[in-house]
Amino acid sequence: MIDSQSRFQPLFDPKSIAFIGASNAPGKWGCIVLKNLIAGGYSGSIYPINPKEKIVQGINAFSHIRDIPETPDLAVIVIPPPAVPGAIEDCVQKGIRAGLIITAGFAEVGGDGEKFQQDMVEKARKGNMILVGPNCNGVVKPSNKLFPQMPSVFPNPGAIAVVSQSGNVATSLTRRAVKSGFGISTMISSGNEADLHCEDYFSYLGDDPETKVIISYIEGFRDGRRFFDTIKKVTLKKPVVMIKAGSTDAGAQAARSHTASLAGSSGSFIGASKQAGITRADNLEDLFNTGIGFLNQPIPRGNRTAILTMGGGWGVLAADASSRYGLDVVRLSDKTLAALDKILPAWWNPGNPVDMVAGNIEGAMMKSIQVLLEAPETDCLILLGIMGLFKMRPVFDHMPEEKIKNHLKETTHQLAEAFDEIRKMSHYHKKPVISATELPFAVGDMEERIFTMLGTKGFALYKTPDTAAKVLSHLVDYGKYLKAVNGEL
Amino acid sequence: MIDSQSRFQPLFDPKSIAFIGASNAPGKWGCIVLKNLIAGGYSGSIYPINPKEKIVQGINAFSHIRDIPETPDLAVIVIPPPAVPGAIEDCVQKGIRAGLIITAGFAEVGGDGEKFQQDMVEKARKGNMILVGPNCNGVVKPSNKLFPQMPSVFPNPGAIAVVSQSGNVATSLTRRAVKSGFGISTMISSGNEADLHCEDYFSYLGDDPETKVIISYIEGFRDGRRFFDTIKKVTLKKPVVMIKAGSTDAGAQAARSHTASLAGSSGSFIGASKQAGITRADNLEDLFNTGIGFLNQPIPRGNRTAILTMGGGWGVLAADASSRYGLDVVRLSDKTLAALDKILPAWWNPGNPVDMVAGNIEGAMMKSIQVLLEAPETDCLILLGIMGLFKMRPVFDHMPEEKIKNHLKETTHQLAEAFDEIRKMSHYHKKPVISATELPFAVGDMEERIFTMLGTKGFALYKTPDTAAKVLSHLVDYGKYLKAVNGEL
Repeated sequence: MIDSQSRFQPLFDPKSIAFIGASNAPGKWGCIVLKNLIAGGYSGSIYPINPKEKIVQGINAFSHIRDIPETPDLAVIVIPPPAVPGAIEDCVQKGIRAGLIITAGFAEVGGDGEKFQQDMVEKARKGNMILVGPNCNGVVKPSNKLFPQMPSVFPNPGAIAVVSQSGNVATSLTRRAVKSGFGISTMISSGNEADLHCEDYFSYLGDDPETKVIISYIEGFRDGRRFFDTIKKVTLKKPVVMIKAGSTDAGAQAARSHTASLAGSSGSFIGASKQAGITRADNLEDLFNTGIGFLNQPIPRGNRTAILTMGGGWGVLAADASSRYGLDVVRLSDKTLAALDKILPAWWNPGNPVDMVAGNIEGAMMKSIQVLLEAPETDCLILLGIMGLFKMRPVFDHMPEEKIKNHLKETTHQLAEAFDEIRKMSHYHKKPVISATELPFAVGDMEERIFTMLGTKGFALYKTPDTAAKVLSHLVDYGKYLKAVNGEL
Repeated sequence: MIDSQSRFQPLFDPKSIAFIGASNAPGKWGCIVLKNLIAGGYSGSIYPINPKEKIVQGINAFSHIRDIPETPDLAVIVIPPPAVPGAIEDCVQKGIRAGLIITAGFAEVGGDGEKFQQDMVEKARKGNMILVGPNCNGVVKPSNKLFPQMPSVFPNPGAIAVVSQSGNVATSLTRRAVKSGFGISTMISSGNEADLHCEDYFSYLGDDPETKVIISYIEGFRDGRRFFDTIKKVTLKKPVVMIKAGSTDAGAQAARSHTASLAGSSGSFIGASKQAGITRADNLEDLFNTGIGFLNQPIPRGNRTAILTMGGGWGVLAADASSRYGLDVVRLSDKTLAALDKILPAWWNPGNPVDMVAGNIEGAMMKSIQVLLEAPETDCLILLGIMGLFKMRPVFDHMPEEKIKNHLKETTHQLAEAFDEIRKMSHYHKKPVISATELPFAVGDMEERIFTMLGTKGFALYKTPDTAAKVLSHLVDYGKYLKAVNGEL
């Protein structure tokens, strides 16, 4: 275990970095990637390599790798493909142990590119150097302020790792991590996977104490058997949520011309991923939503679902969605209904969903949550319209900014307190509570800001009943898998 | 046709309104609904009815309906159920032709409520008065500044109508209309449908020149045969997008206790809705996204889809999603590929998706769109990563507010110009172009604001390839229906 961690140390926790292809010319990737690395606040030494410039972006440059006064851990490489094998050779001689090749134009274009890639990998492996890429977006490790990447997206440290064979999908996911407030532990755009394959990253992240959930976009495998053997071990430690792209004929064809990956048959992947405990997402939203859903929820023991809602329509939508995603909208026992009778207004209509209708008696929602989590016939809860958890005052666009800000602060504080209480109950009973709501009394970007601020506190809040049911169904399936493998949860 | 329009005139275009149950007590619905009516800027006279107060919310009140000095068109009724039949009687005697009963506690609670509802409907029908509700959220007609409703949501006038048997879903959808910038023509929360049924509203909206698309949430029908006969005529004039809630056993049970509606079997609904040309949505997002998708797009002649993308991963996701939703990711002809060869960088990989990769040569995206729309082998286009349409400069959070505002203005302007050009080509060729992208260079709520500002100009922009493909598939299916019924598009 320590092996993979120490092997990846020069990549994700480099003491200093050589930047090969560093540039002052705005618009050039050698300029942008270096700018991002500096902007991210990297605290070690950066050694720009540039044969012509003495100073690059304010830092003393070196004309050759051999001239650097120490041995950097990592080389970031942003030079044209024909020059890369030579640069790797130089890195090896210098004793550099990790390389990140961002440049494109290798195996994915064929011909000479293919040859340069082979050459580069041979030289690196002979010299015990690991390589990320080529043809990738970069890697990111916020806890180490490490941002050698093409896009200018700077997430906070978090517990979600992103592994993607597509650079733009990696960015999409990282941006979601920023917007949601959750942050990430690691982002890896794996590109052509000339040396390191995605299974190497999964293996590393499986043992990474910072990472609690892995979300990934995968088009195909260099070594399918090794991939599944690896991932099987990882999913016993933490959830792996994955989009397997290229799973239709049209998609597979698109993937071939994108990363030249061997998509394999969709059917065999479905079978293998089930056996390996992979949580499969349908699309980007589902992938990210499920990732943050796993973060702070207990894994449910079964699929018996209670629904508590502040509105009838939402309850019906949640019941439909639950049913469609394989959840059992359970019949509540007489005892549970009697307990709810004591809490809810006289006109409530006993059943599941538990519809609190428009009227919300002080504290009724929190008490109902407690009853539903204590009920032996439930495994989990969908909670809709959490405005019922507290008194939310209306806000209007024309209010002074100061007043809106105070309201935002107060609302987030109240919500976080309520969520904290729910989380405690939820973990005590080992029953996840998935919440979805809109915030009708939010103006401008206030809704987004409330969601983000809850994210920074570790609370995932969704917008629609459908999303809540879908995320919950993924948690249920993962629980079922763990139970089948381990005999218990 | 003129019939339904004149029948609904007192409801949606009232010259003056009696407000029965008007209140000064904050927190009471009689206060909130009146407040919303006033806040919305209604320009006719409002006559608050209150036996005790002389002035309600600054307006002279009347102790009885008969005392009003003219005959209002509409009565908004927010008094307890037992008093409603008497109030209706008074309205009829006064000559009022439409009533909106917001109060709950009628048929949905059974017993006396059931009786009050029957009584009220009998009195209204005898007096030639139409009734909305009871147990509803209100109605909204922004072009007439008419907002007698429970929630404080004020959309701009637009071309989408919302019909919902659930009040909270109606609000969800109306809020989306506000946030998206599209606005609405009409919102109807139909409640218990004691008198007017949803088919009456569909019939009215089918002939309403303001309404171009109808989106709706339906749990069940009072008269299924009449419903489908009506809707069949409407879908020939404009698209009707619908969530049929309660389509699973769990959902049906939830719906029964919500609106006591007869959900009917799911299978028979699917068949009937297909024959009636209804576009069925899976969830709230799908419903709204499809609604705005229909607004300004030509209906495609077939399902042969081209995909143009600024990133490989997004292209693969779009190809997968297209395939899953029944679109044909068409093989581009040699002629089309040759035309693209002249536009795109040398390293592009010929095929569909057309992957423009990271490099974007000036104007290449717009020229490629033109080629793909002119190609006889395509019916429609998915466009991903429209940042390629113009030069978008990075923005950072720490920039001065003024600079960010200018950037926002400039970006929206450029995007709107590009979208305008695409719309012209799209309509000329009768091929829809559905766009999805994230805006990586947007900070704070800028992304949301750009999407909203595009919405006010009538352009729908989505975020993910999956959404684009799904919306497009709904357009394709509707085109297929129209073709089957009309023989041509």
